[in-house]
Amino acid sequence: MGKKRIVIALGGNALGKTLPEQYLAVQETSKAIADLIEDGNEVIISHGNGPQVGMINNAMAAYSKTDPSHPAITPLSVCVAMSQAYIGYDLQNALKEELLNRGIHKNVATVITQVRVDENDPAFLNPTKPIGHFMTKEEADKAVESGIQVMEDAGRGYRRVVASPKPAEIIEIDTVRDLLNAGEIVIASGGGGIPVIRKNNHLKGVGAVIDKDFASCLLAKELNADFLIILTAVEKVALRFGTPDETWLDAISVEEAEQYISEGHFAPGSMLPKVQAGVEFAASAPGRTSLITLLEKARDGVNGKTGTRIMK
Amino acid sequence: MGKKRIVIALGGNALGKTLPEQYLAVQETSKAIADLIEDGNEVIISHGNGPQVGMINNAMAAYSKTDPSHPAITPLSVCVAMSQAYIGYDLQNALKEELLNRGIHKNVATVITQVRVDENDPAFLNPTKPIGHFMTKEEADKAVESGIQVMEDAGRGYRRVVASPKPAEIIEIDTVRDLLNAGEIVIASGGGGIPVIRKNNHLKGVGAVIDKDFASCLLAKELNADFLIILTAVEKVALRFGTPDETWLDAISVEEAEQYISEGHFAPGSMLPKVQAGVEFAASAPGRTSLITLLEKARDGVNGKTGTRIMK
Repeated sequence: MGKKRIVIALGGNALGKTLPEQYLAVQETSKAIADLIEDGNEVIISHGNGPQVGMINNAMAAYSKTDPSHPAITPLSVCVAMSQAYIGYDLQNALKEELLNRGIHKNVATVITQVRVDENDPAFLNPTKPIGHFMTKEEADKAVESGIQVMEDAGRGYRRVVASPKPAEIIEIDTVRDLLNAGEIVIASGGGGIPVIRKNNHLKGVGAVIDKDFASCLLAKELNADFLIILTAVEKVALRFGTPDETWLDAISVEEAEQYISEGHFAPGSMLPKVQAGVEFAASAPGRTSLITLLEKARDGVNGKTGTRIMK
Repeated sequence: MGKKRIVIALGGNALGKTLPEQYLAVQETSKAIADLIEDGNEVIISHGNGPQVGMINNAMAAYSKTDPSHPAITPLSVCVAMSQAYIGYDLQNALKEELLNRGIHKNVATVITQVRVDENDPAFLNPTKPIGHFMTKEEADKAVESGIQVMEDAGRGYRRVVASPKPAEIIEIDTVRDLLNAGEIVIASGGGGIPVIRKNNHLKGVGAVIDKDFASCLLAKELNADFLIILTAVEKVALRFGTPDETWLDAISVEEAEQYISEGHFAPGSMLPKVQAGVEFAASAPGRTSLITLLEKARDGVNGKTGTRIMK
């Protein structure tokens, strides 16, 4: 097992939904990540931020209504930035502690990361991602008047809905590389990255949420990683999931994965984007492996013992 | 003028009090910083976070009362982390844009930075720093019951009061060094750093606020900087400030500065900590210069044309 460069994408399960949950969750998460580091691998950690950015967005929005000196709504891009620090601080500490407990002296750094999207991305024409708190019809109407898009969410009320454009560029990729070259463990591109568009030399935050698995895929490609690990709630990806004919997948080719996607085996908003991101990374160059598995199976997965692996 | 390593400590004026103010303020701030970079200097930026962390702390506290799924109070340490991203995101973008407009291609990175304090610091016995929103007597009594210290603030109501311990160690100093070695501009130790104490391998956040000028001084010492620039609202430090005998100071020795401090020339909570931090840095090794001046005079100050310089 030579040293591999591994991008690992943590999901909600690895972080918990509240601060007390997060504090405990990152301890378990850190053990699995420390396993990979102990095996001699170079590790870059990315993570989701669904509950966290929702909470921050709600808190800042509610506050702006009550404090006349602070009337401005905090843009979603700023909330994503804040969520990167909110999560990164806990995660870098838990991981550093776990490494020290194992006698491993490595620095862990959280990099505030922006991810550029294309302002002409068709996703902006069809926002699909509900975020933040539920609103009444009246609140929703007001929000629409102020230019915010709103959707009715499964009979539970109205929610703000934002676009989920594809990531085009990791703005701070050099910073991540510089830290890797110095032997550091890097936490980057949290929450899919702070979404920005470029206007000449100016980067402008946009009200969007970038899928963290696609952002992690781009991060892995730009870093020329050997592995992209996408964590999920099952040990392997299944065909005919939840039926008597359920079949767990071990190693599959890019072509097989594309075939299964086209046959509709994977649920949109759930396993589908993970398999799509996995295919995109594996297809991007020979020798690149995408691994979809449980957090606690990450080490075994890298060593070829479990998980679903996608290779060119 | 050879290349100097400069730590520049930005205060409230350089950042504004609200998000719209900050967005404009960082553009002006970036011009002054870009001047230093254009002159060939290595620059590390630290900054205060008073209004920002107060706002985040208030928003998170108010939110925790309204959302039953999120009952936990967000610790002040987490709020400081969030403020580092809130400010760093705007600041790194504005500076990067200003550099690109001048044809300078350098990366700017925000590092989530913890600063260790000593849990036996006497400051913990005598909290002096008021933070967050004003409370009624009733709210204050409740806060005290839940273990939070409160003080009456100049007839305007009650506020939470926290300790302001001395910074003992910049936890992420290697990360800052690694990025400097790679030629990056680094934003670090925002808001004086996330205050933590060490328990064996564990870092634990504490409810304290570290003075940003002292944290910047420690950062400058640990980085073996040539200059510590402490920005303030006047071009130079004065003796007998605001009196007919007012005398502006140019270059002074550590001993002279200490003499002036002991004579009570500088206001506690205002110019005093700046001069104290300046003395501490200048006294720490030969060749180290502390400069206290206006943001827009930073370049001239480094070139010896203005500001108050303290040298050993």
